[in-house]
Amino acid sequence: MQSAKEIINFAIVGSGHVATRLADAFISAGQIPKGILSNSEQGKELAKSLNLPLFKSPQEAKNIDLWILCIKDDALNEEYASQFPKDALVCHTAGSVPISILGRKNKTGVFYPLQTLSKDKKIDFANIPICLEGQNDEDIEVLKKLASSISSDIRILNSDQRMSAHLAAVFVSNFVNYCYHIGFDLLDSQGVDFNILAPLIEETANKIKYLSPQNAQTGPAKRGDQNIMEKHIELLKSWPEYQNIYKILSHAIERNK
Amino acid sequence: MQSAKEIINFAIVGSGHVATRLADAFISAGQIPKGILSNSEQGKELAKSLNLPLFKSPQEAKNIDLWILCIKDDALNEEYASQFPKDALVCHTAGSVPISILGRKNKTGVFYPLQTLSKDKKIDFANIPICLEGQNDEDIEVLKKLASSISSDIRILNSDQRMSAHLAAVFVSNFVNYCYHIGFDLLDSQGVDFNILAPLIEETANKIKYLSPQNAQTGPAKRGDQNIMEKHIELLKSWPEYQNIYKILSHAIERNK
Repeated sequence: MQSAKEIINFAIVGSGHVATRLADAFISAGQIPKGILSNSEQGKELAKSLNLPLFKSPQEAKNIDLWILCIKDDALNEEYASQFPKDALVCHTAGSVPISILGRKNKTGVFYPLQTLSKDKKIDFANIPICLEGQNDEDIEVLKKLASSISSDIRILNSDQRMSAHLAAVFVSNFVNYCYHIGFDLLDSQGVDFNILAPLIEETANKIKYLSPQNAQTGPAKRGDQNIMEKHIELLKSWPEYQNIYKILSHAIERNK
Repeated sequence: MQSAKEIINFAIVGSGHVATRLADAFISAGQIPKGILSNSEQGKELAKSLNLPLFKSPQEAKNIDLWILCIKDDALNEEYASQFPKDALVCHTAGSVPISILGRKNKTGVFYPLQTLSKDKKIDFANIPICLEGQNDEDIEVLKKLASSISSDIRILNSDQRMSAHLAAVFVSNFVNYCYHIGFDLLDSQGVDFNILAPLIEETANKIKYLSPQNAQTGPAKRGDQNIMEKHIELLKSWPEYQNIYKILSHAIERNK
């Protein structure tokens, strides 16, 4: 054991966005994975680009204490997890999958970074919440040590809490981005540059640091301004899908006044 | 006329959020309104707090070249506008109201700041787009001079463009905030602090400075991950309204893949 930072013997399983971004972050933090476990061409390339050993099976690796599964949610199951040595901790990185999916009476965990990860965009993990789950304090301690090498925001969440956090993330990130998309289309149809909305988008995201979303709500639906809403609905007549979204969200805001 | 900055003889009409925020911004920029026109108690207080003259009618004021109407959309009409001297420019500040609402063959305009304005929160107008419309170059020049005293982002938009910009603003601000509200409720039900979403909200708003919203789209609906979407819909069974919003936005994203 080193004095300041404990080196953890861990390996990353997979080769997609999450594997790439996590491996990058760990390497930058000086927590070097012992290798990448993958059978795909993409995995071979990832290991090569990061200058890490490539494992084709868990048996090829020696003395790995922790396997971090960055694979598709559908691939997570008891049989898959059973290939790893019984004394190694096996954890997945999925928001909406319970810890129990991995079976195994013990030595399972979850290491879930709550952020939108893109393959092509490096990301600074320093303030990204890492949601951890384990079956005992000892396992959680190992995950905490690893997580704290890349982030200062570590949270212990159970599977129900993590699933709600993931679902909330869909609303505040995926659905929010789709609202940006609609805004883009509406402006584009009138030849107005999308960057006209940049200060508003920034202020809207910023406001909720100081106000609850309930108190930060503004707009025609919040004011109950039927005239403006009717005009907007009329304006959306060539976009029935956007019109429907406008009606449903406006009604929901009106009911929540 | 002063050398660097031309002083404009203008007055503000109204006493709500827009009147308050604009008057504040003009005063900070050294473009002091000649007065506040209002008949309400609130208007009296606003004029007093800003140390400006209060006018009860346009006739009480002398030599005003520009009246900025910060009043309710519903109150904007030809009769209302006709009370102002014919040689003064009269402009409204509404996103979804055409310039033609003010009647008057000439000397009408629009001065629309595209931002979410709260009565209690001061705002830095420096980067806020001010959307201007006028009937001739001379009037637009006056509006430009006034706008450039508070912002560096001045845009000439016609009434159709401005209405689309306002509608787009509803999507990227009001509806986005409502998505934050739903995220808050979902986390709250599991005892998880809303601040867990702060980095994700920031990154989502930040991403579209570099990527189009179409290219920035991520999440289960974008990937077509039916398993996760089914889980989320099941999880939302106690919130039928949120469940409906989830389904409609997910389907829209899937169709737009």
